Amino acid sequence: MNKTVTVVKVGGAVVEDEAQLARLLQDFCAINGPKILVHGGGRRATKVAERLGIETKMVDGRRITDAEMLEVVTMVYGGLVNKNVVARLQALGCDAIGLTGADANILLSAKRPLKNGIDYGFVGDVKQADGNKIAHFIDAGLVPVIAPLTHDGQGHMLNTNADTMASETAKAMAAAGYDVTLIYAFEKPGVLRNPDDDNSVIATINHTDFEAYKADGTISGGMLPKIENALAATDAGVKRVIITQATAIDGLHGTVISS
Amino acid sequence: MNKTVTVVKVGGAVVEDEAQLARLLQDFCAINGPKILVHGGGRRATKVAERLGIETKMVDGRRITDAEMLEVVTMVYGGLVNKNVVARLQALGCDAIGLTGADANILLSAKRPLKNGIDYGFVGDVKQADGNKIAHFIDAGLVPVIAPLTHDGQGHMLNTNADTMASETAKAMAAAGYDVTLIYAFEKPGVLRNPDDDNSVIATINHTDFEAYKADGTISGGMLPKIENALAATDAGVKRVIITQATAIDGLHGTVISS
Repeated sequence: MNKTVTVVKVGGAVVEDEAQLARLLQDFCAINGPKILVHGGGRRATKVAERLGIETKMVDGRRITDAEMLEVVTMVYGGLVNKNVVARLQALGCDAIGLTGADANILLSAKRPLKNGIDYGFVGDVKQADGNKIAHFIDAGLVPVIAPLTHDGQGHMLNTNADTMASETAKAMAAAGYDVTLIYAFEKPGVLRNPDDDNSVIATINHTDFEAYKADGTISGGMLPKIENALAATDAGVKRVIITQATAIDGLHGTVISS
Repeated sequence: MNKTVTVVKVGGAVVEDEAQLARLLQDFCAINGPKILVHGGGRRATKVAERLGIETKMVDGRRITDAEMLEVVTMVYGGLVNKNVVARLQALGCDAIGLTGADANILLSAKRPLKNGIDYGFVGDVKQADGNKIAHFIDAGLVPVIAPLTHDGQGHMLNTNADTMASETAKAMAAAGYDVTLIYAFEKPGVLRNPDDDNSVIATINHTDFEAYKADGTISGGMLPKIENALAATDAGVKRVIITQATAIDGLHGTVISS
């Protein structure tokens, strides 16, 4: 039997809300077996930037990361959010270790080239994720807590989308021989057929479904890259990919994404 | 023969100066065998706090850490400084991993009680350092880069003096069976008999010497806690403790502290 690992991705809205975070961390600790938490922190980064007098610029929901903003996200994701989550997990008896892609060189990226004429700045597209290195921490009984930051191998940190970090981590663990469950936890109970109706969760989405939902407008906006990341993970051998509410990360709820 | 490890502590003045940092990291990478870097970052924290409109309060050179300042040092030490050092070391081929005391629970502390009526706030006094955990990273070929932050085991990060972090780390490695060299790197070529004369380095200081130098005023101010930390390390079985310049961390220069 393969070794198993559960990768849970949780966004900024949850980690920045005390009540939601407390519940999420308890539920995460209760997951049986090896596990990895990947977190965001964008709202907090925006708040800290604002207080520092640094303007936040977004294009299609993605942060433009100039040199000053790179310092902010390195501080907020790698320091403030990551270390507080680690300390909280330790208090729950979960032996967490905070990591960015630079730590032990687990996630190497390349600075994103201009895309459609847009310079995203110091943003990294993941080139290589080292599942064996991550497995080494897991084998030691540790629980990796991964911040959405990578490095370019030339001494620079790079801002990296947290959904992508989760997908790349899950793929790397599958490549390292693990039976991987990837759970995207967010505000809604799953991918909704009607965004105003929490009871309209779509049970499963495969490539064909996705194309149809895109074409008829059922799925749009920020959900598109999330599902693209999810499909990329299943295509690369991740066993189960689920999009679900942060209060229901037991793997039994939400939308199942499959190839 | 025992396994060996070199612990280098480098202060904020060095890590925040590009030219000094570049040289220090190269020299650090050139040290043979297992090694650990412990860094400060106080000046950078003060600058970020200032820009955030948070006042820095110091008593006898120690930072008063209220809730807002704790967020600043968690961001700056654990995120900005630590991750940039890790990325720089990775670029030099040194497989660094950034850690605080909360990560893998390597350094547990207790919030400092009132001292002489002074409330230092969220400052941690180290209660327990886990050399075997740190050794596990070293055995995996990793180079720990430790930020001056600990946790209380109850979910809170605490600000901790970097010299103390280095001393406690070195002592824990000695207790784990390592032959430990501890190097305190700073601006001066060693402990000076005459602070204005860089050629007046005191070759060795033991407990008796220290008491005499304290009594006649040769050693005073910020050098006192540094030497106290150094003596505590030798007393606890650290083989060699050296106070030296950041440009001379080869173990052959500076002041040797012995029991």
